[in-house]
Amino acid sequence: MIIPSFADVEIAADRLKGVARRTPLLHSEALDEALGATVLVKAECLQRYGAFKFRGAYNRLAVMSAAERAQGVIAFSSGNHAAGVAGAAKLLGVSAVIVMPADAPGVKLAQTRALGAEIVLYDRVRESREEIGARLAQERGLTLVKPFDDPYVIAGQGTCGLEIAEDVAPDIVIAPASGGGLVTGVALAVHARHPHTQVFAAEPEGHDDLARSLQSGRIESNAPGIRSICDALLVERMGEIPFALARTHLAGAAAASDDDVRAAMRLAFQHLKIVLEPGGAAALAAALAGRVDIKGRTVVLIASGGNVDAEVFAAALRAP
Amino acid sequence: MIIPSFADVEIAADRLKGVARRTPLLHSEALDEALGATVLVKAECLQRYGAFKFRGAYNRLAVMSAAERAQGVIAFSSGNHAAGVAGAAKLLGVSAVIVMPADAPGVKLAQTRALGAEIVLYDRVRESREEIGARLAQERGLTLVKPFDDPYVIAGQGTCGLEIAEDVAPDIVIAPASGGGLVTGVALAVHARHPHTQVFAAEPEGHDDLARSLQSGRIESNAPGIRSICDALLVERMGEIPFALARTHLAGAAAASDDDVRAAMRLAFQHLKIVLEPGGAAALAAALAGRVDIKGRTVVLIASGGNVDAEVFAAALRAP
Repeated sequence: MIIPSFADVEIAADRLKGVARRTPLLHSEALDEALGATVLVKAECLQRYGAFKFRGAYNRLAVMSAAERAQGVIAFSSGNHAAGVAGAAKLLGVSAVIVMPADAPGVKLAQTRALGAEIVLYDRVRESREEIGARLAQERGLTLVKPFDDPYVIAGQGTCGLEIAEDVAPDIVIAPASGGGLVTGVALAVHARHPHTQVFAAEPEGHDDLARSLQSGRIESNAPGIRSICDALLVERMGEIPFALARTHLAGAAAASDDDVRAAMRLAFQHLKIVLEPGGAAALAAALAGRVDIKGRTVVLIASGGNVDAEVFAAALRAP
Repeated sequence: MIIPSFADVEIAADRLKGVARRTPLLHSEALDEALGATVLVKAECLQRYGAFKFRGAYNRLAVMSAAERAQGVIAFSSGNHAAGVAGAAKLLGVSAVIVMPADAPGVKLAQTRALGAEIVLYDRVRESREEIGARLAQERGLTLVKPFDDPYVIAGQGTCGLEIAEDVAPDIVIAPASGGGLVTGVALAVHARHPHTQVFAAEPEGHDDLARSLQSGRIESNAPGIRSICDALLVERMGEIPFALARTHLAGAAAASDDDVRAAMRLAFQHLKIVLEPGGAAALAAALAGRVDIKGRTVVLIASGGNVDAEVFAAALRAP
């Protein structure tokens, strides 16, 4: 297992310069008042392809050999990693096969398809994406681009944290987590500059494997079939590299219910004028629900993505 | 009549440094493909209080004398100028009275109220906001902050154009227009750096006073009672200073129908992950409907505001 270092994040930042976007830290006095803190929202929904995932995917593809590039890549994803890999592959002239669940959000399927990737759909209940992917990878000699358990992917996501650390010295950072690549990459980068910043993961309620893993000291799994509006945050268990980083870098994990997430989406709509997908609103949701004590502190909330179908977004605006 | 110069825009930019936000130019490959051009969207919806209006309001209030500040300000507005003035007044410790129509969008009323302004509602059909305002201004010695026909306001809006001109040398810029303060301030600033850039105004269909004024060579009015989804763009006639600037700086004006505007709001939701109010989407709508020939060019579209009620936004997502 190769654990990325801060130097890897800095190298990733160089690779991503002029390719990924430096996303803004948004601020709203109304949000500060609602949360009783100085709140800065890192708007990764404004990242290329609408989510942070492009950072890690591009950083991974950029280190492939010429021979590997000629063969192409494969990835499994319900959406944001799919588009990140497809977009990075298009930019680097690499062909991409993406294995996606048939029930992935339409906007995510359409975006990945528009980026020129070959999409292989599977049935989430009856089929194994790992088996489909392994077969295709072997048949065609494709390189698998893992969504989080890869040092280059984590270092790429860490560039989001590097930008935060350059802009502000926050007391607290909260990032959505599922596989753990974003929150641990960000923590690695933020701690290199600001060692006393507390970094928390936000995960869907009932899907709290990260919280339990931090407590037990080993990687815990989620029971199958748990439902959450956060389609982007439903990995069964976090990665080994993220877990190793989480043990030294994370201050804890907080849960966000579906109602909290919808409220956060509404708040971001109203006060920040950004579109967040459910998973992208998890950190704001956890803060809003008081799951992390942020009163009076300077807090960065990572809004990790905005790829959401119109009906889901409209429903969140209508709730509660 | 005092016509602002580019130097006034530069002075305004100094005043606004650290107070207004430098908004990003957003880009999306999908939008480029949809429009057949290199499209950059200046996201003024991410400006303080959700619209460009804060720029001009703050620049105007900043030049008031101590005696004027002690008395307070008054403004008429259906929303974005209201919040801009209320926010600038709060920052500068000036009391503000805002005369707003009773049927203004709820989000705009709430935001202005939350900023501590005293709101005086009037009936758009039966009452004259000018009369109400003139009476209050006289009774209380308030300074009127005009929404567009003021050199400091136009210079403040021009800082949006200065940021554009610093970031890119566009072939074409399109900005929403009603009173004309934004589009002419922007044109003034852009032309100082890039004299060959064509600047167009986008106005609601049937509310094309600017297009007719450019043609006839005098300020034309809109017939009363014309309906448009663009609540922010329904001024009866443009200002005299904006008209003087428009004659030398604008290449033309393009109309946006309600359907075009809703389609633009959806496109910005889908590909840019930003929330636009109807008036804020007018430039994108005009480009999308082919009302300005942008094929193959580098185009900046100003997305001037995002203060929209949830029901209106959800309805735009559901359309057509």
